[in-house]
Order: sequence, then structure tokens, then C-alpha cells
Amino acid sequence: MKKLLADYPVTIETPVAWGEMDAFKHVNNIVYFRYFESARIAYFEKLQLMRFMEETAIGPILASTQCKYKYPLTYPDTVTVGATVSAIEEERFTMNYVVVSHTHELIAASGEGIIVSFNYRENKKTKIPDIIRERIFALENSAPSP
Amino acid sequence: MKKLLADYPVTIETPVAWGEMDAFKHVNNIVYFRYFESARIAYFEKLQLMRFMEETAIGPILASTQCKYKYPLTYPDTVTVGATVSAIEEERFTMNYVVVSHTHELIAASGEGIIVSFNYRENKKTKIPDIIRERIFALENSAPSP
Amino acid sequence: MKKLLADYPVTIETPVAWGEMDAFKHVNNIVYFRYFESARIAYFEKLQLMRFMEETAIGPILASTQCKYKYPLTYPDTVTVGATVSAIEEERFTMNYVVVSHTHELIAASGEGIIVSFNYRENKKTKIPDIIRERIFALENSAPSP
Amino acid sequence: MKKLLADYPVTIETPVAWGEMDAFKHVNNIVYFRYFESARIAYFEKLQLMRFMEETAIGPILASTQCKYKYPLTYPDTVTVGATVSAIEEERFTMNYVVVSHTHELIAASGEGIIVSFNYRENKKTKIPDIIRERIFALENSAPSP
Repeated sequence: MKKLLADYPVTIETPVAWGEMDAFKHVNNIVYFRYFESARIAYFEKLQLMRFMEETAIGPILASTQCKYKYPLTYPDTVTVGATVSAIEEERFTMNYVVVSHTHELIAASGEGIIVSFNYRENKKTKIPDIIRERIFALENSAPSP
Repeated sequence: MKKLLADYPVTIETPVAWGEMDAFKHVNNIVYFRYFESARIAYFEKLQLMRFMEETAIGPILASTQCKYKYPLTYPDTVTVGATVSAIEEERFTMNYVVVSHTHELIAASGEGIIVSFNYRENKKTKIPDIIRERIFALENSAPSP
Repeated sequence: MKKLLADYPVTIETPVAWGEMDAFKHVNNIVYFRYFESARIAYFEKLQLMRFMEETAIGPILASTQCKYKYPLTYPDTVTVGATVSAIEEERFTMNYVVVSHTHELIAASGEGIIVSFNYRENKKTKIPDIIRERIFALENSAPSP
Repeated sequence: MKKLLADYPVTIETPVAWGEMDAFKHVNNIVYFRYFESARIAYFEKLQLMRFMEETAIGPILASTQCKYKYPLTYPDTVTVGATVSAIEEERFTMNYVVVSHTHELIAASGEGIIVSFNYRENKKTKIPDIIRERIFALENSAPSP
């Protein structure tokens, strides 16, 4: 399982809730985006992005996201969700996600999100601040979280 | 169906979403509290409670809530959710809810919530402001919403 | 608003729930996938796909889905969600979605999903049955739902 | 924290998800019922109630539930949710819940649910089977889960 998560510097772990299964008796498709979000927020915390946002009014906006479903999750199970930044452009970066089932030791889903750098004071897109860019590089070059 | 909602001055209507059913193929038990919340917020809007809160820092807090499940909802269906204030004390009031199934023309669930008047500036419970009390009385004595 | 939905033969309408907003005071990103799902299920109903599935064990699986966020939704509002099939291959079809805000009369989000035809008895992908293919064509060539 | 959970033979632990906070920046009131449900299902698993249900068609139905909110949860945090059966009657039992915040080491919420024994074949309430009653007693007299 560690191998499946080797490329993801930030991971979170969460139990599958019985109540998140739908009438098909699989974890409902929208729950995977909650998993992605939780990993994304954990990644932002490692960047201290929220504090930076309070000070500068420059913060992230989710522009788009997608999920590929590979193996249906069911209760009971626990998942580890990994997040990594795979590309950085001038005003946006791409985050990749993976959801790993502990019970089955395989990838249940993978996905990605495009996050845009936004100036909330001026209400428009803006360059990713250098310090955030540096923190992303540092985090990506660190060892994966245990 | 109108008869079932006759005592509820505020109602909202919402379709049952397929994805809100759980593995038992019934609308999951927590969804009914979302229905209650939507009716409660609609009631608060009729009181202009949110605007009052911004001006005075005195607003509502949900202290407790409960639901009695009477008839299991399934997709497809639409529900009307009614809200009424059934009791007012010095610092709190009681709101009663009812969830009516359009398909079955019966009460799927009923519930209540205790809402406390809270001063967010002083961080403590406070007397329900007279103007809010009057608006509640006026709303309760009005005709039910169509 | 009708113009925005002209290409979508199936639409559903749902109120925005206050409780679906997150700490950023926008409708949370995962809720849009619930909207898509509700439109997808409504489309399936028009195809009588669930009944077909019970009789033949051949039914749909969501292989992937994505959403592009264009304008943040807030409470109070109502959305109309449109669904259309934009491409059909041998064993899969692509569904496109659009979420239209009534308050702002604009597209809040668009998205797509890849739906695979699956034989649940043999546990493998299968050709889209001709009758389902025909129903999709008929539905796509019909007038938009009112 | 162990002291707060001493009376609860079954506990589950789950991280607070950022996306479960609402526009008031607190964990939304309905999420606590998801916590209760997860603890309830974990309790049912200890009773092997689901297997019993498949064999006999006698299973549990949630008749009512309530929650008292004591301290608002926020992200980041982790909660432990405890469940205990506090009363057993002929055809129903009462389950009590507690939600403990790890960050604050206090009870964020408590609640209860009434669970009715139901014969799904005959579609009516039924006596709690003796073997289930015995398993409840055994579980309640066991040491708390670690």
C-alpha cells in the first residue's frame, strides 16, 4: 500500500462511513470528491496557505475537478487519500489525488483538480506568489508523509 | 396534503434526490435534519433574523433537535417541509417540523428543534429581542404559506 | 435561461439548501456532483434504464466524471440542471451537464460523465443494447423538457 | 478523554472533514447524526445484527433520534463517538451516543436513538430476539473498546 502512495507527499486517512453508501450499496460517487477535498485542504495546511490568504487576500479557488472510479468502495473499509502537485503554471497548479482502499490494498479511484490563484481583494486571477511556489517545491521534494 | 401542513406558517419544497438514499434503499436518516434545517432557515428569513443578527450580533443557535421517522421516503418523490414555533420562553423557542411526502400524501417524519437566543459579541445566551418575538407572533398568526 | 438549457433534453430543478454551503459561504464543490447525479438518474428514468437493468442485468456504471466551476452558487437560489448525451461508443456514452442559477440567470457549472454499459451477471463491460441506444437517440431528438 | 467514554462499550474514531463545516464555520448540525449512525452501525456489527437479519428477516429500524449540541466542532479535529444501550424493552431499545473532541478533550454533543425490532418478512414490529438481547447484555458488561 505504501508503494501506491509513494508519489504523494500529503496523505489523509478516513474510515468509510456506512451512511455514505447509496442504494447500489457502494460508496456514492460524490463522496470521493469529499475525500479529494480533505486531502487538498491538508495539502494547503502544509503550505500554510490559509494563513497566507488571511494576510494577503490571495488564495486558492478550485476551477475544475475530476474523478476516475476504478474499484467500488464499500463499508467497512478505511481509505488513505494522497495529494500531489503535478504541474505549476503562472496562475494555476494541478493537483493529483489517489484513494487507496485498506481492505483491498488497491487504488479505488484517482482524480485531479485545477487550482487557480485568486486575489479576493481585486476579484481576479493572479500570479502564484513566489513563496507559495517555493513551499510547493519543498513539499514535493520531501519524503512522503508516514 | 394541505390539511397536513395547515399549522405550519412556513414551508419549503424540495425533490428527493436519488443519491440521498442509503444501502437500505430509503432516504438516509440524516437527510431529514437537512430538510428541517432548510425549513428553519426559511423561517428565519421570514423573521429577517439574519439581517438582525448582522446589526446586533444577537442570533439563533440550535441547542438540540430530534426526528421521529414515520414512513420511509424513497426516490422519486418530492417533500414539503413545514416549520412552526410552538413555544417561546425567555431565551429560547421551540420549532416543530413536519415532512410530507407528495407521492404518499402522508407525514414521513416529524421533529422539533430548540433554538437559543445568543449574543455572539458577549458570547452568552440572551433574552429573545422583543421585535423578534413580535415577528414570530405575527408570522404564526398569518395564513399558511401557499 | 431557456436558451442556456436548449440543448439539454432532460432537466431537473432543485432549490439550493443553506446547509450545502461550506465555510467559504459558497455551495460546496461536491454538491455539484449531486446535481449531476440527479440529472443523470432523471435521464436514466426517461430511458427506463432501471427497469431494463432488472430484467437483463445490464446497466450503467459511472466510470468518470468532472466539473468546471464557473460562478459560485450561494443560498438562496434555485438551480436547473440539464443532461444530454453528447457521444455514444460501442460500450460507453458521454453525458454532459450544465447547472443554471435562477437568481443570476447564468451557468454556474458544467460537467461531464462517462457511463459504461455493464453486465452485472457476467461482471464485465458489454455492448450498449440496441434498444437503449435507440431510446437515447429518440430522447436527444425530442424537444427539451419544459 | 478516556473518562468521558468510559460508559460506552463501542466507539469509533473519525477525522472532522473541512467540507462538513457550514457557512457559520462550524461542523453542520446534520453531521452529528452521521457520527451517531457510524457508532450505531459499529455497535450492530459487534452484535452481528446484520448477519442475523439476513438469516431471519428480523432487523433494526431507527424510530427516532435526537442530538444535544454542547460545543461547536471545527476543522481540524478528530472525534471519538461512543454508543451504549441504556434501556431495553420488549420490542425496542434505546441507544445513547456521545461525541468527544480530541482537540478540546470535551463532549461536543450527546444524543440518543430509539431502535425498534422489525420483522421485514411480516412487515411489523416484533420482540427483540433472545440471542440479540443476550449479546447486548454481554457487550454492555464488557470492558470499553480501546
